[in-house]
Amino acid sequence: MADADTVAKQFVDFYYSAFDADRKGLAPLYRDVSMMSWEGQQFKGANDIVEKLVSLPFTRVVHKVTTMDAQPSLPGVTAIVITVTGQLQIDDEQKPMQYTQSFQLVDDNGFFVYNDIFRLNYA
Amino acid sequence: MADADTVAKQFVDFYYSAFDADRKGLAPLYRDVSMMSWEGQQFKGANDIVEKLVSLPFTRVVHKVTTMDAQPSLPGVTAIVITVTGQLQIDDEQKPMQYTQSFQLVDDNGFFVYNDIFRLNYA
Repeated sequence: MADADTVAKQFVDFYYSAFDADRKGLAPLYRDVSMMSWEGQQFKGANDIVEKLVSLPFTRVVHKVTTMDAQPSLPGVTAIVITVTGQLQIDDEQKPMQYTQSFQLVDDNGFFVYNDIFRLNYA
Repeated sequence: MADADTVAKQFVDFYYSAFDADRKGLAPLYRDVSMMSWEGQQFKGANDIVEKLVSLPFTRVVHKVTTMDAQPSLPGVTAIVITVTGQLQIDDEQKPMQYTQSFQLVDDNGFFVYNDIFRLNYA
């Protein structure tokens, strides 16, 4: 497979661009087997995940990635684990919030999100 | 397998207790195939990983876990992905630092760390 860092960088760029432009555009990145933990709440399957993302209570959001680390996942599958830390700014809030998001991507005729864990970081 | 949350909680408790007591005690948790990204530096295999951890430039450290999320990893293996956010306090520093650490654990006669990504979070 392409280098884990290269795949991860392309994915992360695409993911946050789509998130910030129109969260419905994330649907093709998830499948029925996908899992998401969002601030401790668990969601399973593309429908439930995207419904949650679309329902988040803000209109405008801008993500800024601070760090991104990727590693190949288990042998026998083409999969990558990624952990992102960054800042996000919503609507008219002045102060950005720190966040952490981890993904496992799996290649099955294109990469999709198998695991997704999102947390805001409060100091 | 046991529930992902239960395994994750036991692992995280053990990991940070061992880390804070004597970092050499982490060696049995890693194997030759293990990968660690530590503040962007990459390490492979239990020896290199534990050597790095032992060489970190502080004597005393206390981790406090703020959030922990776990999900089952890919089907066909017994594996779990975990993302922790927390605070750590080193030596005589008054102010704790925020950190994020993600693990993938794999069960092979007991769980070991396959992937490990660590980052400090700067506001």
